[in-house]
Amino acid sequence: MKEKILEFIEKKQFAQLKGYLQALNEADISDIIDELPGEDGALVYRLLDKDVAADVFSRMENETQERLIKLLKEKEVTEIINNLYADDAADLISEMPAVLVKKILANIDPQQRKDINELLKYPEDSAGSIMTTEFVDLKMDMTVKDSFDRIRKVGKDTETIYTCYVIDAERHLMGVVTVKELLLSKYEDLIEDIMEKSVIKLHTLDDQEDVAKTFDKYDFLAMPVVDQENRLVGIITVDDVIDVMHEETAEDFEIMGGLEPSDDSYFNTTVWEHAKHRIVWLLFLMLSATFTGAILTHYEEAFASVPILVSFIPMLMDTGGNSGSQASTLIIRGLATNDINVKDIFKVWWKEIRVALICGSILGIVNGIRVAIQYNNIMLAIVIAITILCVVIISKSLGCLLPLGAKALKLDPALMASPLLTTIVDALALVIYFTIAMHVLAI
Amino acid sequence: MKEKILEFIEKKQFAQLKGYLQALNEADISDIIDELPGEDGALVYRLLDKDVAADVFSRMENETQERLIKLLKEKEVTEIINNLYADDAADLISEMPAVLVKKILANIDPQQRKDINELLKYPEDSAGSIMTTEFVDLKMDMTVKDSFDRIRKVGKDTETIYTCYVIDAERHLMGVVTVKELLLSKYEDLIEDIMEKSVIKLHTLDDQEDVAKTFDKYDFLAMPVVDQENRLVGIITVDDVIDVMHEETAEDFEIMGGLEPSDDSYFNTTVWEHAKHRIVWLLFLMLSATFTGAILTHYEEAFASVPILVSFIPMLMDTGGNSGSQASTLIIRGLATNDINVKDIFKVWWKEIRVALICGSILGIVNGIRVAIQYNNIMLAIVIAITILCVVIISKSLGCLLPLGAKALKLDPALMASPLLTTIVDALALVIYFTIAMHVLAI
Repeated sequence: MKEKILEFIEKKQFAQLKGYLQALNEADISDIIDELPGEDGALVYRLLDKDVAADVFSRMENETQERLIKLLKEKEVTEIINNLYADDAADLISEMPAVLVKKILANIDPQQRKDINELLKYPEDSAGSIMTTEFVDLKMDMTVKDSFDRIRKVGKDTETIYTCYVIDAERHLMGVVTVKELLLSKYEDLIEDIMEKSVIKLHTLDDQEDVAKTFDKYDFLAMPVVDQENRLVGIITVDDVIDVMHEETAEDFEIMGGLEPSDDSYFNTTVWEHAKHRIVWLLFLMLSATFTGAILTHYEEAFASVPILVSFIPMLMDTGGNSGSQASTLIIRGLATNDINVKDIFKVWWKEIRVALICGSILGIVNGIRVAIQYNNIMLAIVIAITILCVVIISKSLGCLLPLGAKALKLDPALMASPLLTTIVDALALVIYFTIAMHVLAI
Repeated sequence: MKEKILEFIEKKQFAQLKGYLQALNEADISDIIDELPGEDGALVYRLLDKDVAADVFSRMENETQERLIKLLKEKEVTEIINNLYADDAADLISEMPAVLVKKILANIDPQQRKDINELLKYPEDSAGSIMTTEFVDLKMDMTVKDSFDRIRKVGKDTETIYTCYVIDAERHLMGVVTVKELLLSKYEDLIEDIMEKSVIKLHTLDDQEDVAKTFDKYDFLAMPVVDQENRLVGIITVDDVIDVMHEETAEDFEIMGGLEPSDDSYFNTTVWEHAKHRIVWLLFLMLSATFTGAILTHYEEAFASVPILVSFIPMLMDTGGNSGSQASTLIIRGLATNDINVKDIFKVWWKEIRVALICGSILGIVNGIRVAIQYNNIMLAIVIAITILCVVIISKSLGCLLPLGAKALKLDPALMASPLLTTIVDALALVIYFTIAMHVLAI
């Protein structure tokens, strides 16, 4: 599709290009504009029909949006902001330079300006910041027929019409009714009689991660957001929640990989920013690992008299790290999905110890046999086998206890993933190893 | 809520319990039954209204469903299967013992039986296996009013009514129309004129991961699934896709943590199963790490003459592993979200090398200064600083090249995460370290 569009542009067949664009889906057009050079992107954007332009714009990558804003006239930008849903517009504006924001806000619809200002005042990552203020509101004394009239009137400008919220004169949330229920009811039925009165709702200051969990639990297409006086101020739709889920997952992956979380895409982050997101953890972990090295200097005489001992260090460190990561990955995920709770700590630990006994025994025996055959040294084989068993038990224990402990202390359990855990387990593995070796081998 | 329900059960106030349950949301009831002991769970389940019972059942955990099936009479089980949406029923049946499946299938509605058998024949994780066969289908010559009549007639039994699909006499997919469009049109308008003709659709054999990506791109609430002759066979709704997203994310986390992926929850996996999911990777990585150990034996004379060299091994191994994991985490995530493509390989590598230069220089200088001061040995400090820089460059390079290489070979990039990468980087780190040390220190 991209090639075809570039061809139209090159041949200056703009009328044909306009027709071609009308056959494409909004998501595909925004993907293409993302990939086109700035000027061509602006050209294609200007050829779009008014009613799809805002949708295309809201689907583009942040960088493309910023590029386009710079190329378009102020009047065109104002029109985009006017046509976006208020939540998307607020997202966009919060990324713009202050001087441009001021100009734009001065020119747009008063209602849209009010909605945007409203949304901008909520803290980042709160339900208030991701909600939209455009929805279908009904009154209790309306009939089903009145409701359809209301949907027809306001529906065109709202993000969803399928879930309608019932409010009283002071905008208190009284109930919820879906279009499915409306369609399956009689025209003369009263909203009051068919609405669901016990509404599951969100509060403006709820964390977006909790919002995602609530959607996940109830499978709603939309949920209402109320303020502290139970007044309906907005709704959150399932597509926004899917974005939040992706954001939260990406954050977990990043923290577990020893990175500072970042919202930007890989290529849109500069080399310096990448380095900045990585260096703090690397420095911290490197300096922590020097303590592990300091431990080794205590056992200098051990590996001076039995040099072969040194060659097992990498294997023991890696096996400890890997055993621990397996446990911590499962626990961190389980905590994220509410599958595991902090109160289960002893149940989890007991399970991990039994798993560690099985895995540690197998690994110990396999490696013990290998060492016995390769070096023809039974005592060394026993040292390695016992060390592996102990290291696996310790690392699986820490792999479950550290994330659970972090959660109990209201820290992010993902911090206790592989990088930090490995550093801690390494130090313990070496102490265990040389203690056992010095006793068994009588060094 | 659970306490209240247990109190009702204890006092045998079943009528009151029935009333209490009517005020609760289906998702909350299923959560409570998940937590109740088997008999109490069955008791609560039997008190539910017919029309919510199936919904509650489909939201329960697999284990609770199996427990309940064992406690209920065959007639009750048949009723559950009849009332579930076909996709949920097929999921449930595929987990049951064959003898029970045969009995149940013999007793249920012929239409439901046909739907279930249809779904059971698709491969696991395909679009066909997660779709539902119940949806609203319209004809091109219907008016908007006819369509509403049709929705009223079949809508009660379909998972969603908000997206309706237009088919011809041979069930070929001709178009799609949303209830929003129907509501905003005139009653006498023809479906043919208001439907969207270029339909984005899925095929029965599409992988569920691609299904999730398509939903993500287009933000649809439902998508049609067609067979090879473009006949409409089912639809997939956004709530099923959210489940798929969670499944795929969990799988990525597990593979990246060095675990074999598993669908079961942490507590519902036995100790033996946990051990089985972990031992293969642990064994493989442990034996790989012994090669790293073998490398060390080559340098025995080096650390025999300068024993302090051994104490830097853990720090160098960990720093290499962590630098590599940072890169591989970003690349694996980028590949999963289509943010990075295999064709970007050189762009990514060049970026990682520059990041590595910055991070490696900082780490090298910091640690070099520490060594120079602590051991009063400039040459040793130079060895450590240069080694760190080289190790960071190598590990960041492998951290991006290995996942991209795996993807190019159609393997899962997540396999190249921390555990395997660390093992490879460790070996290289030691070779680099001792090569540099022996040259600079002239051992």
